[in-house]
Amino acid sequence: MHSFSDRERGLGKVISFVPTMGFLHEGHLSLMRIGKERGDTLVISIFVNPSQFGPGEDFEAYPRDLDKDLELIKHIGADAVFSPERDELYDERFQTYVQLEKLPDHLCGITRPVHFRGVATVVSKLFNIVKPHISLFGEKDFQQVAVIRQMVKDLNFDIAIISAPTIREDDGLAMSSRNTYLTSEQRHSAISLYRSLQKAQELVNRGQKEAKTIVEAATELINSYPDTDIDYISICDPETLDAVNTVNGPTLMALAVNVGKAHLIDNMILTT
Amino acid sequence: MHSFSDRERGLGKVISFVPTMGFLHEGHLSLMRIGKERGDTLVISIFVNPSQFGPGEDFEAYPRDLDKDLELIKHIGADAVFSPERDELYDERFQTYVQLEKLPDHLCGITRPVHFRGVATVVSKLFNIVKPHISLFGEKDFQQVAVIRQMVKDLNFDIAIISAPTIREDDGLAMSSRNTYLTSEQRHSAISLYRSLQKAQELVNRGQKEAKTIVEAATELINSYPDTDIDYISICDPETLDAVNTVNGPTLMALAVNVGKAHLIDNMILTT
Repeated sequence: MHSFSDRERGLGKVISFVPTMGFLHEGHLSLMRIGKERGDTLVISIFVNPSQFGPGEDFEAYPRDLDKDLELIKHIGADAVFSPERDELYDERFQTYVQLEKLPDHLCGITRPVHFRGVATVVSKLFNIVKPHISLFGEKDFQQVAVIRQMVKDLNFDIAIISAPTIREDDGLAMSSRNTYLTSEQRHSAISLYRSLQKAQELVNRGQKEAKTIVEAATELINSYPDTDIDYISICDPETLDAVNTVNGPTLMALAVNVGKAHLIDNMILTT
Repeated sequence: MHSFSDRERGLGKVISFVPTMGFLHEGHLSLMRIGKERGDTLVISIFVNPSQFGPGEDFEAYPRDLDKDLELIKHIGADAVFSPERDELYDERFQTYVQLEKLPDHLCGITRPVHFRGVATVVSKLFNIVKPHISLFGEKDFQQVAVIRQMVKDLNFDIAIISAPTIREDDGLAMSSRNTYLTSEQRHSAISLYRSLQKAQELVNRGQKEAKTIVEAATELINSYPDTDIDYISICDPETLDAVNTVNGPTLMALAVNVGKAHLIDNMILTT
């Protein structure tokens, strides 16, 4: 991978890079299309990263289908796919982690305390391996994008981070590899995440600015669906992710809900 | 710096890099000379890195003399000197650290718990800024070299790490910017570090293999000099830095001694 990237860079090509955990869906493919537009050489990585899963999380169960992924990538037309084995990225003496001190203390980082350390570490590794000029991330994982932007700034990576909007199913459910865990009944309950975000924006449109009231309405809506277990619903500053009491100007609403065994997340920028 | 390095790389030049905290001595200059031999473009950084100093350590007191440093570098003939301000590398929202889990739990990391986190972080930053092919480090800072080699491997930096032997004064004292803290009496006591290493090798030559006995002899020797306060004396595995009981094959002896207000370190590979 180092040789490939050195050669492309030596030819003056702009390398765009989409890191993924595979089991690709339209969200990933949209990032790849943007990557192709913005760069000359498109590199995709497929790697289910063990260090971002905590004990008891779904590392083993996480869906994998490399053949289908490669087929989808072939239609997009990538220049390289980097799909290492676990031991190639984490040998038995591995001991170096990239850790942020503030952004992970919010949202998903609270119930998933090692998650963003794992994300920052593997993305650092992949950046050093792929040497891209541009890297693309989906906004469904809002906190992940925030962590990566901060890491790139703090560690002085010479890489432009581009984020792209969440791609949704026809009924509004955010696309996610984890949607495959849902039974057909749970699939119906999963729509409650997006519905609660829509509901929140409606309340804001009608003049409601109290975060507490908006969160209560969202909680009630989600709890009215079977098999839902709210992890968090947060209304917060989109840069620091610190909770806010009132919605004044663009404000992030982010939530995570366990629907059956699927930990689903979604978010929206509420605008006044 | 990014533009400079991109240009040099685009021209096919091999960039060699010597990161320093300035107040240069013959140890630094020896690394620069090796860097010139091994690469086409020599980059030096000068930055007293706040994140590797703990509370109560000598960040403020650390000696600085940029004009003299630039004069010395001019004689060597470097292609670029990178000397950022503190705020350029650490702004008020900085929060990302590179941390190793095992190697810092030894030697200097015990009394300096944030030191190697700071070293790994700033070296990662400088690697991303300077984009070298090769980087050079002095073996006086044995644990630092071990930390950087491990970090480069774990985070997949495409950079060759070259270490070079400690440069010593005529009487054997390892060169260090911190030697400037020593009064003339303390300067005499400072030689006890190297003397204790020589003594250890003599004991090994005479058949002594017990780490405990060797450390006792070194302790006695150092304590016989005024104004010395031993931080640690360790006989350990040169790769893991784990303490060993007996000297079998190449074994690291490393020590740190406070002489007056100077925290001095030295080391030697004991051979049987």
